[in-house]
Amino acid sequence: MSLPRKHLFDLPENVIYLDGNSLGPLPRAVPDRVNKVMRGEWGEHLITGWNVDGWMAAPVTVADRVGRLIGAAPGTTVLGDTLSIKVYQALSAALAMRPDRHVILSDTGNFPSDLYMAEGLIRTLGQAHELRTVAPEEVEAAITGDVAAVMLTEVDYRTGRRHDVTRITQAAQDAGAVMIWDLAHCAGAIEVDFAGSGAEFAVGCTYKYLNGGPGAPAFITVRPDIIDSIDPVLSGWLGHDAPFAFEPSYRPGAGIERMRVGTPPILQIAALDAALDVWDGLEMAEVRAASVALSELFIAQVEARCPDLTLASPRDPEKRGSQVAFRFDHGYAAMQALIARGVIGDFRAPDIMRFGITPLYLDEGDILRAVDELEDVMSNRLWDNPAHQARQRVT
Amino acid sequence: MSLPRKHLFDLPENVIYLDGNSLGPLPRAVPDRVNKVMRGEWGEHLITGWNVDGWMAAPVTVADRVGRLIGAAPGTTVLGDTLSIKVYQALSAALAMRPDRHVILSDTGNFPSDLYMAEGLIRTLGQAHELRTVAPEEVEAAITGDVAAVMLTEVDYRTGRRHDVTRITQAAQDAGAVMIWDLAHCAGAIEVDFAGSGAEFAVGCTYKYLNGGPGAPAFITVRPDIIDSIDPVLSGWLGHDAPFAFEPSYRPGAGIERMRVGTPPILQIAALDAALDVWDGLEMAEVRAASVALSELFIAQVEARCPDLTLASPRDPEKRGSQVAFRFDHGYAAMQALIARGVIGDFRAPDIMRFGITPLYLDEGDILRAVDELEDVMSNRLWDNPAHQARQRVT
Repeated sequence: MSLPRKHLFDLPENVIYLDGNSLGPLPRAVPDRVNKVMRGEWGEHLITGWNVDGWMAAPVTVADRVGRLIGAAPGTTVLGDTLSIKVYQALSAALAMRPDRHVILSDTGNFPSDLYMAEGLIRTLGQAHELRTVAPEEVEAAITGDVAAVMLTEVDYRTGRRHDVTRITQAAQDAGAVMIWDLAHCAGAIEVDFAGSGAEFAVGCTYKYLNGGPGAPAFITVRPDIIDSIDPVLSGWLGHDAPFAFEPSYRPGAGIERMRVGTPPILQIAALDAALDVWDGLEMAEVRAASVALSELFIAQVEARCPDLTLASPRDPEKRGSQVAFRFDHGYAAMQALIARGVIGDFRAPDIMRFGITPLYLDEGDILRAVDELEDVMSNRLWDNPAHQARQRVT
Repeated sequence: MSLPRKHLFDLPENVIYLDGNSLGPLPRAVPDRVNKVMRGEWGEHLITGWNVDGWMAAPVTVADRVGRLIGAAPGTTVLGDTLSIKVYQALSAALAMRPDRHVILSDTGNFPSDLYMAEGLIRTLGQAHELRTVAPEEVEAAITGDVAAVMLTEVDYRTGRRHDVTRITQAAQDAGAVMIWDLAHCAGAIEVDFAGSGAEFAVGCTYKYLNGGPGAPAFITVRPDIIDSIDPVLSGWLGHDAPFAFEPSYRPGAGIERMRVGTPPILQIAALDAALDVWDGLEMAEVRAASVALSELFIAQVEARCPDLTLASPRDPEKRGSQVAFRFDHGYAAMQALIARGVIGDFRAPDIMRFGITPLYLDEGDILRAVDELEDVMSNRLWDNPAHQARQRVT
């Protein structure tokens, strides 16, 4: 099962790209759009582009296209900054909502930057707060009455293991805690019903499954009924109610506008906007069904043909995001050998070979060819031969 | 006096652009560079671009090109985020250096977002801190023993009035306060000797006189001897000492690397990098001399030919940045009429007509033609005739 979208991407020849969970490939429409913004807007309209070309509104207008893919209501999502900054915004707002509580609960499966930002926020707030980190399977039991905010990444960046959003959000709310979901590995990958979940905040990035390009802006979504009560701590001028009145004191802007900070990255937003055209007419349910079918095929083939690899992802597709991970002691070298043969996945220490399954531009033939190469690497022990390995990469 | 750089810019025909202090125009080299990054790097190298194309290092390598223009030592500047975020980083680090003091001193000439970010930081820190804002001419006397940090924008965004950096930095340090300079209207506009000033921090943006494009990244520079003692509160993974080790706790990276936060905006950095080629072989002293000559010409001509306009900028070029402001009660309408005639300046409430003097792409002929149009607007009272006014713009 695959989706008729491969023609919308510019993929290099002889490459099978299984790392779209880290950086999505170039959608064909992106260069022309960015060129239009550079030459036709910036070059021709200069400063007036902020109005006549819609640059000032872009963080909100383009955000709604992302919002649709994560089940957020229109007007509740905004683009900007990086995911780490958006985590800081959500977390600081969440803690302000529960001033009598001082625990941020997270898990060891969270992306480290989320934990680092929590540490930094706690340092800023003083010593009263605590970041409590438990194993993913212990989260629900750890949501005690002293927890102000539960901050989790739904899909584990290494194994693809999914949290049960409905269940954990309910448990958080039953315990009076604010719920923050990091959807970095969800947006464009799996079905998300943010509005239906009841969670207060979601954050995420747009350079993975949304293919917005290297350094594409992050997003934050806030539950509509609480937006107006948030007093942002990253109170930049573009989150002000009247940025161009240049008032001496901050007043939060209307609704989600207050989660903006500084001048938006117009070239990156233009690239993302063009990349989002790929999703026109697609429902996440179709994408998810195709992802599951390809993932099941990949797992079955690898397990049958590469016995030295051990599945690290949940076997149940319902408990898995859109990536598949295998453990292998020599995983790093094996991945380098695979990359040298044109099959690009990536590696996460200590032993995880990670494969992103992205049905927008992968089909069954790609999956089967990828396993052919992987089988070759494993059966011929190419991981033990430096001549067969790609140079080191940062992923 | 002008610089032989006009041919390096793509300026629209029949436009005289006097708003480069808000958004610099498109340098001719930018589109090709950004296209190379999109098609040749992202498109061809995919995830490996982070290493093979130097994306991961770009925030530091490109920052040094900015650093040269503000007198910062190599390796002490980093790009990323927006100026508001960089203000928050500098200010939080400065306050941590003076834990026994609780006053942030700024002035009413500061750009409002800097003040807003200070307010937000104070909210995060609790109620012990205070933002004390005085008139620009009262700053020096207000640096009392309770001031932890002095945070000022060197050049006023409305009038172009300059602070005396040497004198104020010395006064701050004599009083035991940490000095933070916002160089938004300085970088690429006037000579700055950050290293020589002794100040601890400088921040700025790159979309004004550095022509990096709409939403180009901000920069932060830190005095080398204090970098290693900073424990960043915006502790994102790319400021970690080993981001790809995915350790559970934050450890600050080496030197200025710790002021990075999240994934850098590669398309925007590429645009800026190409824009910075314009400065190759140029010294800021030449640029400044040309700016002063053109500004003096502009002021003399406007004062001689447009008697209803009152100079709002300091008359002494040494006390002025690279922009000239005039007051006029109907300034907004007059500016719209001027823009409609192809001379693009901008307006700041309540009555400031603002003109950026940027000798990289303006010469004496441009200045004289701009004054011709301005004289026409004023002598024919075109500001009183809506048919002569451009549509409203955000600047």
